[in-house]
Amino acid sequence: MTDMKIGLAQMRVRSQSPRRNFSELKQYIQMARLQGAHVLMCPEMCIPGYFVGDAWERAGFLAELEDVHAQLAAETADGKIALVFGSLGIDRTARGEDGRVRIGSALYHARRGGFEPHTRTGLPFTYKTLSPNYREFSDTRHFTDNRSLAFAAGVPLGQFVRAQSLGSPGFVAGLCLCEDGWDEDYAHHPLDVLVKEHGARALLNLSCSPFTAGKRDKRLRVFSAKARSLATPVFYVNCVGTQNVGKTVYGLDGGSFVFSSDGGLIYEGGFFREELAIVSFDPDTGACALDETVRMDQGVGGTAVTSKLARFSLDTCPTNPVAEKRVALEATLAAVCEEWNIARTVIGVSGGIDSALSACVFSRVLGVENTFLVNMPSRFNAMLTRDAARALAENLGCPFLEAPIEDSVALTLHEMKGWTFGPGARALEVTGLVRENIQARDRSARVLSALAASLGAVFPCNANKAESTVGYSTLYGDQSGFLAPLADLWKHDVYAMALHYNAEVFHRVVVPAATLDVVPSAELSDAQDVTAGKGDPLTYEFHDRLFAAWVERWTRFEATDCLERYLAGTLERDLGCTPGLIARLFPTAADFIADLERWWSLYVGMGAFKRAQAPPVVALSRRAFGSDHRDCLGPVEFSSRYLALKGAALAEAALAECALAASPLAMGTVRPGSP
Amino acid sequence: MTDMKIGLAQMRVRSQSPRRNFSELKQYIQMARLQGAHVLMCPEMCIPGYFVGDAWERAGFLAELEDVHAQLAAETADGKIALVFGSLGIDRTARGEDGRVRIGSALYHARRGGFEPHTRTGLPFTYKTLSPNYREFSDTRHFTDNRSLAFAAGVPLGQFVRAQSLGSPGFVAGLCLCEDGWDEDYAHHPLDVLVKEHGARALLNLSCSPFTAGKRDKRLRVFSAKARSLATPVFYVNCVGTQNVGKTVYGLDGGSFVFSSDGGLIYEGGFFREELAIVSFDPDTGACALDETVRMDQGVGGTAVTSKLARFSLDTCPTNPVAEKRVALEATLAAVCEEWNIARTVIGVSGGIDSALSACVFSRVLGVENTFLVNMPSRFNAMLTRDAARALAENLGCPFLEAPIEDSVALTLHEMKGWTFGPGARALEVTGLVRENIQARDRSARVLSALAASLGAVFPCNANKAESTVGYSTLYGDQSGFLAPLADLWKHDVYAMALHYNAEVFHRVVVPAATLDVVPSAELSDAQDVTAGKGDPLTYEFHDRLFAAWVERWTRFEATDCLERYLAGTLERDLGCTPGLIARLFPTAADFIADLERWWSLYVGMGAFKRAQAPPVVALSRRAFGSDHRDCLGPVEFSSRYLALKGAALAEAALAECALAASPLAMGTVRPGSP
Repeated sequence: MTDMKIGLAQMRVRSQSPRRNFSELKQYIQMARLQGAHVLMCPEMCIPGYFVGDAWERAGFLAELEDVHAQLAAETADGKIALVFGSLGIDRTARGEDGRVRIGSALYHARRGGFEPHTRTGLPFTYKTLSPNYREFSDTRHFTDNRSLAFAAGVPLGQFVRAQSLGSPGFVAGLCLCEDGWDEDYAHHPLDVLVKEHGARALLNLSCSPFTAGKRDKRLRVFSAKARSLATPVFYVNCVGTQNVGKTVYGLDGGSFVFSSDGGLIYEGGFFREELAIVSFDPDTGACALDETVRMDQGVGGTAVTSKLARFSLDTCPTNPVAEKRVALEATLAAVCEEWNIARTVIGVSGGIDSALSACVFSRVLGVENTFLVNMPSRFNAMLTRDAARALAENLGCPFLEAPIEDSVALTLHEMKGWTFGPGARALEVTGLVRENIQARDRSARVLSALAASLGAVFPCNANKAESTVGYSTLYGDQSGFLAPLADLWKHDVYAMALHYNAEVFHRVVVPAATLDVVPSAELSDAQDVTAGKGDPLTYEFHDRLFAAWVERWTRFEATDCLERYLAGTLERDLGCTPGLIARLFPTAADFIADLERWWSLYVGMGAFKRAQAPPVVALSRRAFGSDHRDCLGPVEFSSRYLALKGAALAEAALAECALAASPLAMGTVRPGSP
Repeated sequence: MTDMKIGLAQMRVRSQSPRRNFSELKQYIQMARLQGAHVLMCPEMCIPGYFVGDAWERAGFLAELEDVHAQLAAETADGKIALVFGSLGIDRTARGEDGRVRIGSALYHARRGGFEPHTRTGLPFTYKTLSPNYREFSDTRHFTDNRSLAFAAGVPLGQFVRAQSLGSPGFVAGLCLCEDGWDEDYAHHPLDVLVKEHGARALLNLSCSPFTAGKRDKRLRVFSAKARSLATPVFYVNCVGTQNVGKTVYGLDGGSFVFSSDGGLIYEGGFFREELAIVSFDPDTGACALDETVRMDQGVGGTAVTSKLARFSLDTCPTNPVAEKRVALEATLAAVCEEWNIARTVIGVSGGIDSALSACVFSRVLGVENTFLVNMPSRFNAMLTRDAARALAENLGCPFLEAPIEDSVALTLHEMKGWTFGPGARALEVTGLVRENIQARDRSARVLSALAASLGAVFPCNANKAESTVGYSTLYGDQSGFLAPLADLWKHDVYAMALHYNAEVFHRVVVPAATLDVVPSAELSDAQDVTAGKGDPLTYEFHDRLFAAWVERWTRFEATDCLERYLAGTLERDLGCTPGLIARLFPTAADFIADLERWWSLYVGMGAFKRAQAPPVVALSRRAFGSDHRDCLGPVEFSSRYLALKGAALAEAALAECALAASPLAMGTVRPGSP
């Protein structure tokens, strides 16, 4: 057989935009033809988008997809190029387990104007075999797969997982979708079936694989090992852009690749880059070589594939982990703002580190002239931080406004004195916490909201991941915003990224030293006076790591697991803290336990209530808040073991009576539970 | 064989409270013993709760469950009573498909102090067979099931679905969990396997089945048919209380039942009632008879099974659909407030129908003295509605406050004149919409929030389902609240329930005539002057039904489907509208199309953004907003077919250029898309 040229279309995919995606894909087809490709591989769900919420239930959406699929087949009518693409498989002759028309993530092989039918089902597509249902994925909510069909039919998986002749008649390709290659924890191994049962000479994997920090390395490791163990080349194509599952917004970073049969890397696609690669493949020997890569995002021959992603894309994923996240955040935000039609933002800048980082990011994504910075001091804000906010705006060159909230807060406190439900009615108790939250809501729900509306802008929520974990924020106050771009960064990540901006992006001091040095503080009362060194009740070098164990570990710690390790003396090591830190922070077990219960109760209690109403989060880690961190609202018991450990530790069994971490929205108190 | 006495424990289950649930269950065991029961059936997941978010990933939680299971087994040590209960099956020898310890919803059969092992796996439990993954269910996110294990092992389902000897040695019972009985859309039929392959003489189904309107009828129909077709009695036990999937709060309504082998109803449990039933069963003849029901919720022999549910529970589900929803709403809210430790609420009452209904509901659940009503007029509020708000408070007997927002709004508008980003900067554009939203946010994020905090109370969001569909509300304004109790009621449901309160609950005029008669209006500008008959841009008799077709249909309509039917003249019939209504509202096709595009774009656009930050919803219908209505944020294309139909209808193909319904948070504009 002669060499085949296989194209990999690392294209941008927009959710719920089939015609737009088709139109972009046509540019890749045209360019692939120019480059002499025999086959063009396109990502999973490249027509509808992979994450479309419940839009799969809409009759008109399914009909539209069928329409576009037919048009795509027509693109191959001259027989010169074949297409292998992922989209929705729709089988109107059968019902899914939800009683609707049966659908699934599927791969299509279009050639000579039609679709290669599945040899068993006769359908013009092949379903995915393994359906991921963890993290951001919930495939089986709507989709069937080869696995469940094979079991229902009482036949081996190999009758549904089918290899196909591709390009030249003698070349048998093993086509599969994303998860099919990530089979470690499954009882079934689709790639092995393709090679060992069906004699595939190359494996083509169509993916839609969201960015998370460090995922590139894992992808390369997993598929290089597959190529080697099956002695078969692997072609992997992923999309770029952004997609979301409602409250969690993902970047799609591309990073497509080809591994030769010995596991050697032949090609790797750029980071968030729209590009087409052409790889030569000899079906007889299995030898592969990279012929060409074309940057589609810069516009090709007057075509329309231009995108705001281009400015943020790189040849390859940065190896510096801070740079990796920073570029991913900028690229994802650029795509989000482009798709959501956002051109301007207002940002409340306090002089603190979170809002400073937010301003850096948005000034890069939307431009300094479209990033409006507002400082909103009350009597509790120090000149130190007010000046730092102003300096940040000057350093960036952003429009700046100081809008004090003192008069408005005073008016509310004054009016409250007159608010009475009549004689004998319960009196209002205006505590310090009530006063603090009035300030926070005044800033967001009054000033920022009105400013954004009047400027045709949005405003972001600058909460970091530690604050989001325990709800250290005010609902309708600083927790508000159209999006929370920093809510997947721990406080130490926020500092690291701010320093990175100064050193590696701006190459000068943009985030002021005062912002980097000041104690983190909400500055809502005298008890939070930064000039006296007073600030947040969180010690981030410890709490960042404690919270990460609750949120990010694959098998999560809960209060019990933490207390067990504390008492065994292994907690510092397990969390990765500096030795001696815990003893320094908590002189006694009682101190440690009080702190643990305070924050754990807030995490599972009030924090969950606040997250339910928090803005969407940009995901950067393997476990971001939003739709992928599923909270159940209500009280959570401390376990029997926790109470026993605590009782023993305190040598006061009576204390173990307080059994429930209750979590009402208004109170956050711990209520006594049942014995 | 002698008659067996089977107990059905329709117990209250609290999420993430294993010890509390165990403690309640022990009361049922004690009472069942007193009644001479040989076997006690308890609901699915009656120890951990069924909906616990991602708590399944917590190591300490799993350990706690194992602990409680062992204690439950010990309860059967004397051999006089056996327990059949649902809880988490934990298999530490195997991994789930997410790589964690393998777990699943499972049934346990405890007798003589131990658990009956599964004959094939040797595990002390049997997994569920069918895993629901639609609506509020996402079982396979964490759980394995018999179906996937059987396929992985390459054996028929019958080796994993096992019948068990129960009570007397010769009595073979078919044990199963919830979805196993709802097999219509599956290729596998676990109940048939139990009867036909394993010779089960009775089917015992342990469920956790949330309330939705009309579901009782469906449950009875499905299982009566099963009993008849398999000629086998069916025992079905469901729990009561409330559980939630984050942003959707469900009531658990009980309604347990027993069908004899001819499908005759032997017993039906109460509505939201904590009760124990004892049913005699003759394993030889299959004959069943109800012996006894005990109301556990009223406290039994000095035991602790008391609950705020009792006041709202009924002997049976009401047949009047309005009463059914009203009782379910009250009972669910009572359970929610009890578990979330909420004793008081503040409610903003406008004089309109939604807030009036909200006040009725909460005054019943928390008591009139704990339901603080606040009217917050601006210059745009008519005396008509202000008086109606006051009259409502007087009729209910609730504490009432009038807190005008005029001064605060004036201060904000005054301050805005001084807000400038310097010479040459973009000027603020304070439109009418900006002014309207300032008022709405002032009420919620300033007045209600401060009042609630000072009273140790919460405040609800009074949005109805039509408003929630299209985001006809202000973010951080009237969309705020700890919970949205009415957001699963269409506007016509709100009216019907308010009338029902007057006529059937209070037996007098509580919701004033002015509130029932006034045109629905936000009263935020002169354009919404109710005294001039001006109000909301929605005509609820049409839009309620249009939106229901987008949201609630099993196969959903989108804009294309609506326009198709409009042009074919069948839309009114398909929606169930009064004949002639559409022609009256929309004299021309252009009018209809403009209205359709306006609301459809808001539904998939701004509405989705607002829902992402909206409070949790109490589910009453089969499809409530919240975590079960999954929105993907961003623009949604109008389909090719839509554009073609529109072009033809308007005979102006040029209009079809406007292809994308864009959806930025700040703008809600329609942007031109790609061709």
